[in-house]
Amino acid sequence: MSIFLAELLGTALLIILGNGVVANVVLNKNKGQNSGWIVITMGWAMAVFVGVITVGAYSGAHLNSAVTLSLAVAGAIQWDVVPTYLAAQLLGAFLGACTVWAAYMKQFEATDDADLKMAVFCTSPAVRATVPNLITEIVGTFVLIVAVFFIVKPVHGLGAVDALPISLVVLGIGLSLGGPTGYAINPARDLGPRLAHLVLPIRNKRDSDWGYAWIPVVGPIIGAMLATALYMGLK
Amino acid sequence: MSIFLAELLGTALLIILGNGVVANVVLNKNKGQNSGWIVITMGWAMAVFVGVITVGAYSGAHLNSAVTLSLAVAGAIQWDVVPTYLAAQLLGAFLGACTVWAAYMKQFEATDDADLKMAVFCTSPAVRATVPNLITEIVGTFVLIVAVFFIVKPVHGLGAVDALPISLVVLGIGLSLGGPTGYAINPARDLGPRLAHLVLPIRNKRDSDWGYAWIPVVGPIIGAMLATALYMGLK
Amino acid sequence: MSIFLAELLGTALLIILGNGVVANVVLNKNKGQNSGWIVITMGWAMAVFVGVITVGAYSGAHLNSAVTLSLAVAGAIQWDVVPTYLAAQLLGAFLGACTVWAAYMKQFEATDDADLKMAVFCTSPAVRATVPNLITEIVGTFVLIVAVFFIVKPVHGLGAVDALPISLVVLGIGLSLGGPTGYAINPARDLGPRLAHLVLPIRNKRDSDWGYAWIPVVGPIIGAMLATALYMGLK
Amino acid sequence: MSIFLAELLGTALLIILGNGVVANVVLNKNKGQNSGWIVITMGWAMAVFVGVITVGAYSGAHLNSAVTLSLAVAGAIQWDVVPTYLAAQLLGAFLGACTVWAAYMKQFEATDDADLKMAVFCTSPAVRATVPNLITEIVGTFVLIVAVFFIVKPVHGLGAVDALPISLVVLGIGLSLGGPTGYAINPARDLGPRLAHLVLPIRNKRDSDWGYAWIPVVGPIIGAMLATALYMGLK
Repeated sequence: MSIFLAELLGTALLIILGNGVVANVVLNKNKGQNSGWIVITMGWAMAVFVGVITVGAYSGAHLNSAVTLSLAVAGAIQWDVVPTYLAAQLLGAFLGACTVWAAYMKQFEATDDADLKMAVFCTSPAVRATVPNLITEIVGTFVLIVAVFFIVKPVHGLGAVDALPISLVVLGIGLSLGGPTGYAINPARDLGPRLAHLVLPIRNKRDSDWGYAWIPVVGPIIGAMLATALYMGLK
Repeated sequence: MSIFLAELLGTALLIILGNGVVANVVLNKNKGQNSGWIVITMGWAMAVFVGVITVGAYSGAHLNSAVTLSLAVAGAIQWDVVPTYLAAQLLGAFLGACTVWAAYMKQFEATDDADLKMAVFCTSPAVRATVPNLITEIVGTFVLIVAVFFIVKPVHGLGAVDALPISLVVLGIGLSLGGPTGYAINPARDLGPRLAHLVLPIRNKRDSDWGYAWIPVVGPIIGAMLATALYMGLK
Repeated sequence: MSIFLAELLGTALLIILGNGVVANVVLNKNKGQNSGWIVITMGWAMAVFVGVITVGAYSGAHLNSAVTLSLAVAGAIQWDVVPTYLAAQLLGAFLGACTVWAAYMKQFEATDDADLKMAVFCTSPAVRATVPNLITEIVGTFVLIVAVFFIVKPVHGLGAVDALPISLVVLGIGLSLGGPTGYAINPARDLGPRLAHLVLPIRNKRDSDWGYAWIPVVGPIIGAMLATALYMGLK
Repeated sequence: MSIFLAELLGTALLIILGNGVVANVVLNKNKGQNSGWIVITMGWAMAVFVGVITVGAYSGAHLNSAVTLSLAVAGAIQWDVVPTYLAAQLLGAFLGACTVWAAYMKQFEATDDADLKMAVFCTSPAVRATVPNLITEIVGTFVLIVAVFFIVKPVHGLGAVDALPISLVVLGIGLSLGGPTGYAINPARDLGPRLAHLVLPIRNKRDSDWGYAWIPVVGPIIGAMLATALYMGLK
């Protein structure tokens, strides 16, 4: 399996299960409706687990543009494969979000609240404030990338054997740092599904909140670069 | 232990714990009543864990007709053992459901709602709609079978060492894709207990909803075949 | 460390964390009050984990009279060490329960409901009915002992490496079969703390419900013997 | 990476995720607000996991002054490195708490209750009573240190491979013994963030409850010494 297909499949699985758990918890007419933060965070953790265990052996399972950029800056992957990773992640995230929409079709129909319908796709802050929102995304991604570096000792990425530890790291970040902004900590995770929200024919949808869309891209990249600098200074 | 007995025992354990957790959460007079989606999904995940760790060394612990069919199509098992697997799974699921009924006898007596009593045995959709319900089961089983293929690299099935990863995959599917239909993702898991619901002398029971019964059989098979095709195309 | 001391320490840790989580959830003035079935069952699972990982290398960490009897019947341990195991387990469980009382002293004082105070120590059924209660304990212990046999392939017991799988098995039993009787599935776990309830100077305590006390002893033993027969017939 | 930097980084990660989960659950305007004890305890467990897996290879990931003192008394580390560990832990905990404040800036602004704002930083008892509070912290830390000793067989501390078991031990302690005092079980975990609470410009904050501050220092040390004595007597 090529890096492109592996990253596409892995990121699609990440988003199918990640956006899927949000759909289950926030949309009407669901068996898991209102089942709370433990369900959201465990769902995202298992999403990471499934994505990494499935494609880790093929692409290193970055599944996250911030991981790819950090590994490139640290010299663990070549810069010329970076566009392949980023494109596959964005496309995989987009297709994953479309799959969630298909799997939850009647639940989208049964839900009037346009904010909740958008929440299935992409993050939005509990309190809108540029600098604090950026800081929260920076801190969350910083913890993720520090852990990634010290778990994998930069080779080209994560192997299947890293699926459990990295999913527990993401569980921890979600439980502990997800409160203010919903922990995007991954540009592709937010941007791909936001594009899906833009183009899918969802009934009574709202705008896709493009004014906020740069924060879950820039914040994670800043956090990732800080973690990369720390790792390169300490290693 | 023969394949037949191993699959029967493993699937019975799967259903004892899987149907059991639903009984605990939905029936009256239970210490776990109304304890929510995290309990349901963790219970099913641990059901998979116990089934696979117990019989993985003997039959490959398919415990799921969709897994058996996928492995046969992929050439990992011979077609002539398929009927043995399918029969053992169906019988094991039936016996497991009868065991749950015995363990929760007074709770069935204390519950009037016939829909809840049926929910202990088999799945039903949150919103009844043929194509959307099929799609949800297809997507859930697709994720399961893709993960199975990439975790085990088709040998004859799952070993005891795969019990934890596969239970986490099922946890993820339940949390994230279980909302609309209750994630059968396994024909035997739904059909065997539905037959138990038909024949057991449950007080004030409803019909066994045979109009829906084909969806958790056909949906998982379609999803499994799509995943098998993907795996065979990509490997 | 001798078998006696290891089993005593391991069972005391099991009960400190197991009875402890019930105290946290059911008594007044607790940070975990009313935190639900997932907390109870995860707490008992981690109690098993801590007990087994701590003393597995020394005594095989039975921590459960039903496990000891099953291993003796299966020929995995000698009958002449059985009294040592049983005595250590009972004493360890008693001391563990006393420790919980000390750690939750002000919470016992702040709680008037005598049934809740007894629930910290020992099990009682959601619906009192001899045969159904026995069946539930039989089924739960049957699942436990089957899993133990197939996880450890009877040597003298569980090693530290079995701590995670066996704790997940107990998590599954609690989630799925704990509803009707509170899953004693272990004579020592129920009897030792019940004796502690009898002798400790708890304010406004009720009687220790000795009419029920034989069920969480006899039920687990029957379930364990059925599992042992199954294992010896199938192996 | 030096021991000082490793312990500082590991303890900072512990507190970022540990104090972070409290912030998410208790402060207003959070996606995880009021999500309960399972979120708190899983968050702290994953905090331990991330801290240990990140720096275990460099410093033995004590991250806890009680662990350091126990290992020194047991002869597993030299006394002359103890001050380095203690200073790094305290400074790391302080910096971690400041990071949580930055990540939850708007949530602190949106919360009026000064007790809740302090709870993000340090522990306080559900019922204030010196001896019972001390006992609870002693019991919790005793369980932790016993488990640490028997998991790692005193070498200099925990390795990355111990991250999962030790995080499950802390999960168990939180679930089962955290009710009365909020389970500090670590002097640095309480004292470092309490100092951060003292100096940070938090709007409408209360005093930092210095009358209680000695209990989560002295209690854990007593519990650790009892566990060390037990281990040295039994090994």
